[in-house]
Amino acid sequence: MERHTVFMSSTPVRSTPTAYTTVSFLSDLGLESEHVGVVKAIIRDEAPHVAVIDLTHNITPFDVRAGSLALARAVPYLTEGVVIASVDPGAGGTRRLVGIEVAEGAGVFLGPDNGLLAPAIALVGGAGRAVILDRDEHHLSAPGHTFAARDVLAPIAAALCNGADLFDMGTPVDAGALLPGVVPIPREENGVLSCEVIWVDRFGNCQLNVSLDDLRSVFGPDVARVRTTLGADVRNFEIVVAFDDLGQGAAGLVIDSAGLLCIAVGRASAAVELSIGEGEQVVLAPGDATGPNAVPVTITPHR
Amino acid sequence: MERHTVFMSSTPVRSTPTAYTTVSFLSDLGLESEHVGVVKAIIRDEAPHVAVIDLTHNITPFDVRAGSLALARAVPYLTEGVVIASVDPGAGGTRRLVGIEVAEGAGVFLGPDNGLLAPAIALVGGAGRAVILDRDEHHLSAPGHTFAARDVLAPIAAALCNGADLFDMGTPVDAGALLPGVVPIPREENGVLSCEVIWVDRFGNCQLNVSLDDLRSVFGPDVARVRTTLGADVRNFEIVVAFDDLGQGAAGLVIDSAGLLCIAVGRASAAVELSIGEGEQVVLAPGDATGPNAVPVTITPHR
Amino acid sequence: MERHTVFMSSTPVRSTPTAYTTVSFLSDLGLESEHVGVVKAIIRDEAPHVAVIDLTHNITPFDVRAGSLALARAVPYLTEGVVIASVDPGAGGTRRLVGIEVAEGAGVFLGPDNGLLAPAIALVGGAGRAVILDRDEHHLSAPGHTFAARDVLAPIAAALCNGADLFDMGTPVDAGALLPGVVPIPREENGVLSCEVIWVDRFGNCQLNVSLDDLRSVFGPDVARVRTTLGADVRNFEIVVAFDDLGQGAAGLVIDSAGLLCIAVGRASAAVELSIGEGEQVVLAPGDATGPNAVPVTITPHR
Repeated sequence: MERHTVFMSSTPVRSTPTAYTTVSFLSDLGLESEHVGVVKAIIRDEAPHVAVIDLTHNITPFDVRAGSLALARAVPYLTEGVVIASVDPGAGGTRRLVGIEVAEGAGVFLGPDNGLLAPAIALVGGAGRAVILDRDEHHLSAPGHTFAARDVLAPIAAALCNGADLFDMGTPVDAGALLPGVVPIPREENGVLSCEVIWVDRFGNCQLNVSLDDLRSVFGPDVARVRTTLGADVRNFEIVVAFDDLGQGAAGLVIDSAGLLCIAVGRASAAVELSIGEGEQVVLAPGDATGPNAVPVTITPHR
Repeated sequence: MERHTVFMSSTPVRSTPTAYTTVSFLSDLGLESEHVGVVKAIIRDEAPHVAVIDLTHNITPFDVRAGSLALARAVPYLTEGVVIASVDPGAGGTRRLVGIEVAEGAGVFLGPDNGLLAPAIALVGGAGRAVILDRDEHHLSAPGHTFAARDVLAPIAAALCNGADLFDMGTPVDAGALLPGVVPIPREENGVLSCEVIWVDRFGNCQLNVSLDDLRSVFGPDVARVRTTLGADVRNFEIVVAFDDLGQGAAGLVIDSAGLLCIAVGRASAAVELSIGEGEQVVLAPGDATGPNAVPVTITPHR
Repeated sequence: MERHTVFMSSTPVRSTPTAYTTVSFLSDLGLESEHVGVVKAIIRDEAPHVAVIDLTHNITPFDVRAGSLALARAVPYLTEGVVIASVDPGAGGTRRLVGIEVAEGAGVFLGPDNGLLAPAIALVGGAGRAVILDRDEHHLSAPGHTFAARDVLAPIAAALCNGADLFDMGTPVDAGALLPGVVPIPREENGVLSCEVIWVDRFGNCQLNVSLDDLRSVFGPDVARVRTTLGADVRNFEIVVAFDDLGQGAAGLVIDSAGLLCIAVGRASAAVELSIGEGEQVVLAPGDATGPNAVPVTITPHR
């Protein structure tokens, strides 16, 4: 079966203004309060034919970069429809809210113009039509101005799902004038690759901004081990394709589900065992030849 | 667009016994266990046409007041249908379970008679018909008696969504005989307003039980600064309309999405920075005139 | 109303290959990332008529036993359809993924062959047809091999919901050759019952692997008190049917919603008050006669 590419479809999926039936929703609103539920209640009321798919609502508050990376990881799997993304430290202030079509109308992204949407949109072929969501008549009137996902994004998502045209939702804008996202790019110098931990997942696996292809293009197609420098700590890591290929307590590099290299420890948390966090700088160099020194470094098993 | 007022509609939305299509669900069951999923599985099985909207399931265990406030904040946005609310320290004991119609049948609230439902029901125009849910033939038989949301509220919600009449679900009761909710009211004395932190959200914002209208009625229509006493700490807070209007690390009062005053710190947690928790007593007095002393107090930025 | 027994139905519910409309989903993927949402997005795209019921995604990472117990507690309440279960420390490795029919086709379980599914399947009458999910043409191609719920279980769930036959999804296998689950069984010796805390819920209640029937068969039908040994601590616990039957701060045994005995403390956490965790060994003996010594032990109220 081919990989999911609905958003990247090159033929118009929605030649006439028909209704979308799915809203995908990512935010830092958390699940402790009623906020996410209220957004979904509004969509349910205005567009009862729509299903809302929660991507996650547990992005660290205000962490636009983490939200943009999660959205980019998810976007190849999303179905046709509207995407609401809300990680919005500037809520209620002067930052603008935008709506951006992708894939010739197969999808519309709604969110703040703070870079959150940019990496995902780039992955699905770039922006089509775009508007600033500045037409108040499509917003909910509200006692306060701090909850844009409820007062602006939800009613506009519902309107689009009911067949409204994006250009009726606000003032057209050149997508090139919107804020770009900030995705860290690995840097090659003198045959070593400087990269970064861009995500620590719930299992403590530490995703790097480096794919196996990146690695091969620098270290050659047969690379199997990588000399990995984490601060003062230098280790010779094997590259494997499953977390369980690492022995219990052994550290190594796994090709993860996004195709990126991931520092991991067998049945334990690499973040805890190796004291690594998001943003950690990591230097990769060609690994030592197979031999006694190439055995994965066994560390203290997780307690 | 007008503010959402489905439940407050003054015309009967459901003149004949037709099916509801939405159940809104709030609880303290948490998402760590299968409990919430089981309630939804039962509704799915009995009434497959129904969508369940999770408001939140992370109300602090047993915290009826917090649950009632979250439900009240959500209720203006809910769509027609059944509302299940379960924060129920007395589960399986002698407290009664009740069903209460609102808005001439546009909605039915199901939950314990412990005050949880009262503030939300008051907000949508008060109780209509009410019953004690005491007819066992509509409950699931169960190996234990401690999970009313599963054994009583879920099957009754499904039955109502399938067109059953509320009066067939139990013994009619005078809604006036049900337990009232406990919502703290601010108190005015000698020109100062004694109020309370009623909610700390995930961003650390501290919601007070005071609206801007409350403030204006006591301090005059032009109030722009408020002298705020938190224990021994006295601060002169500016009133703003967006969290981002506060400089990074600066504290102030934001009109939040519920229209209430909220003690907040720019891009940081007011709860942490100012050591404030739910239930904290706060005294508000007219603020000092604009001038050097009126600059928002800059505190240690959040680490 | 009879207890929910869809999966245990003895008549074929699905005599012709028609579509399932529900997928129940349990995992240890957590809600911090977009992973659960991506699985649901794929199902939405491939089989838009399907509703996904989240049982829980907060199983402790890698805790196959905890996942299998949660699934077993949920399964009597599930509706007809597909069940995806993913607690899979061996993801991407050599462990096999399997599909197992139950209740003459009323349900199909999809998950790893690591014992996770076994207790739930036993509860609904045992396995029918089973396959190893080894036909790559039904999987999503992916940049890595570590996310089986996304790349294998989701597309196969969607295919089954669209009417595909299980035997087209992989190689038939004898269900008897699959890994059994590990459910701890209480042990009787010399009139005492050695058992175990199998689950601590969010309220701190400690579920034992002992039902009231188990207790009665050992201690007689009139058992009302149980001498309970927790390490060096011996207590005389009363058996009650509601958590609120325990006075505030008093410890006792409650018949919980699964029909199992549960060590609980009135309006407090037994896990905290009594320092009990999952896996704790507990010895039960007949309780002392009613009298001064039989008053539930009052402990320090929860702070």
